[in-house]
Amino acid sequence: MSFYIPKGFLFSTAEAAIKKPGRNDLALIYSNSDCVMSGMFTTNKIKAAPVKLDMRKIKKGSGRAIIINSGNANACTGEQGMKDAAEMSEIAGNLLRINQDLVYVCSTGVIGTPLPMERIRSKIPSLVASLGNSSIEDVAASIMTTDTFPKIVTKKVRILNKDIIISGICKGAGMICPNMATMLSFLMTDVNIEKQALDTALKTAVGRSFNRITIDGDMSTNDTTLIMANALSGNPIIKAASKAFMIFSSALAEIAYELSSLIVKDAEGASKLVEIEVVNAKNDKDAEKAAFSIANSLLVKTAIYGNDANWGRFMAALGYSGISLKENKTDIYLNKLKIVKNGLGTGKDNEANESLKDKYIRIQINLNIGKGSAKVLTCDLTEGYIKINAEYRT
Amino acid sequence: MSFYIPKGFLFSTAEAAIKKPGRNDLALIYSNSDCVMSGMFTTNKIKAAPVKLDMRKIKKGSGRAIIINSGNANACTGEQGMKDAAEMSEIAGNLLRINQDLVYVCSTGVIGTPLPMERIRSKIPSLVASLGNSSIEDVAASIMTTDTFPKIVTKKVRILNKDIIISGICKGAGMICPNMATMLSFLMTDVNIEKQALDTALKTAVGRSFNRITIDGDMSTNDTTLIMANALSGNPIIKAASKAFMIFSSALAEIAYELSSLIVKDAEGASKLVEIEVVNAKNDKDAEKAAFSIANSLLVKTAIYGNDANWGRFMAALGYSGISLKENKTDIYLNKLKIVKNGLGTGKDNEANESLKDKYIRIQINLNIGKGSAKVLTCDLTEGYIKINAEYRT
Repeated sequence: MSFYIPKGFLFSTAEAAIKKPGRNDLALIYSNSDCVMSGMFTTNKIKAAPVKLDMRKIKKGSGRAIIINSGNANACTGEQGMKDAAEMSEIAGNLLRINQDLVYVCSTGVIGTPLPMERIRSKIPSLVASLGNSSIEDVAASIMTTDTFPKIVTKKVRILNKDIIISGICKGAGMICPNMATMLSFLMTDVNIEKQALDTALKTAVGRSFNRITIDGDMSTNDTTLIMANALSGNPIIKAASKAFMIFSSALAEIAYELSSLIVKDAEGASKLVEIEVVNAKNDKDAEKAAFSIANSLLVKTAIYGNDANWGRFMAALGYSGISLKENKTDIYLNKLKIVKNGLGTGKDNEANESLKDKYIRIQINLNIGKGSAKVLTCDLTEGYIKINAEYRT
Repeated sequence: MSFYIPKGFLFSTAEAAIKKPGRNDLALIYSNSDCVMSGMFTTNKIKAAPVKLDMRKIKKGSGRAIIINSGNANACTGEQGMKDAAEMSEIAGNLLRINQDLVYVCSTGVIGTPLPMERIRSKIPSLVASLGNSSIEDVAASIMTTDTFPKIVTKKVRILNKDIIISGICKGAGMICPNMATMLSFLMTDVNIEKQALDTALKTAVGRSFNRITIDGDMSTNDTTLIMANALSGNPIIKAASKAFMIFSSALAEIAYELSSLIVKDAEGASKLVEIEVVNAKNDKDAEKAAFSIANSLLVKTAIYGNDANWGRFMAALGYSGISLKENKTDIYLNKLKIVKNGLGTGKDNEANESLKDKYIRIQINLNIGKGSAKVLTCDLTEGYIKINAEYRT
């Protein structure tokens, strides 16, 4: 598979043996010219040091580089953690001969252990020196933790008579819940766009993708999405609400959605991708709440794993979600098969069980009381998840 | 083990082959004289038919009998379910020659399948005829679903110069979350007590026990706690806020707490009992929220299973719980070992991992910002839970 790379972006990777040796765990993303940047971050009150750092930097809205490490989250590491994150951007900035404010830092991995700064420090020079020697696949692979495959989506779109490229990579496979999970994602584009328009496009894209996936209901301390736009494609600048903006925004949303789907597909131990759509809820908020309640139910997830169309568990999860509903107006479809009508089983359990053997499961709940809707992606829960997470640090 | 039985209570059990043959799945609890009764029920908006029925009956505050079936929850069964529940109490009431309003009905098991009323109907006469032939152990066994042992706690207390007996049984092993779980519990006592005092005592007891346990975060459609007090011990009537009330209330609370602990001990697939206590939170509500956030975290539960003192996961769960906290004021103790001080690891991970090999794990979070506290019981999450719940209906 070959990927589009936006003009002016260079990559490098290195091995700092942060958690253990034997793989690249340090990466640098660099743009030849200054970028307009937007970012979104975890809403967890416990934020990793690099998240706090980046949240400060993003206020200026510009950047040139992102340095990323896997193997250690640099979270719950106190003042030392803040110093370490700052030092990473300082060293990289000095070597790149750019202001360190333009260098963002992201970390992912174990929480609560100080970064092995000696090993990281000594690797940054070769990381900078080798810019251009790594591919986007190399970067995507180096930021993986429990991920089993690198996650990359790229697109070329025609906007204002120019070819615009948007490329995205992400990592994440567990500790995934609304509001962006142990999820790092990096979006790069050569579009020329106003800062405010970029903010809006990113917010829209994340709202429909990374904020609508859940694997285990655990929200991470490190979630970060950053987008860099370096204007090198030379299009006339895109302003918010223009036609060109709509084209860019929808392309970005598609990329984010596809990236978030890859995270759920790679969910720890999962054997099935599950889409849960709630329609005709009282309002969109209720629909989202209901969809997440079902998506996070261990009993729903294990039933899907066991090919058991135990729709009573869907009903129970709807019931405790706190939304408005009428039991006798609720319909449930499983892969288009109507298994519940007006709150009652339709007797199609055997067909439904058979249908659950698919690898892509689509559950639709029709509450029939309003016009709200929401779609959430999740996965089943298997012994594999337990195994991965019981043994994560060993 | 022998149990105390309050004066005037009789039991019987029968096999109606509700889910499958080979075990008693029908039980009757009967008091020789009218009881003052209190009840608490699931707050799930989807309520099983017997729950709706009992919620109506309990308004009168009196009763004589409870008929219980396992194997089928009679939930999501529509009008037919309501008719079936009513018919169960009607048949039992007629045979017992008491008003059917005095007969409560409880069901537990699969959701969404109509009760096999033919088989149940034909067994009620022998259930009534054999009253007194079964023990409290028989009843506790007959109401089990995925439970692996019957759950019984009884106590004798001296109040106002009389021996008062309180006996409790319960069932529950999964779909257990705050607000009472797939949990049925029946408390019987020969105390003489005012209705309002009994309500208060039950509310207090449940608030500190069944409402403070979680196995999987899934709240059931059928949770019910009923208490019957028939006054046969002959004590002067207990009024609220009296000294006698305090003695009764605290004995009842102990029984409820011990019963709820048995549920967590029997949690589906669990290998460890985990007590999570949050102290010095901003207020009690925050403490409870924080404790449940940790207790329901799949990453915490799997780490405990894997003997991995991965306290970063505790911090993450605190951070997304939505409570007030200061990262650098947070201390965490694991079985009395201080593993986090002021938000930072104390380097005792190896000792802590060793300590996690115990079967009873005690986690204490000190937020050091206020005076709120709460204690929640939960368990680890193992492959066994997945197996049980993936195969439940098969």
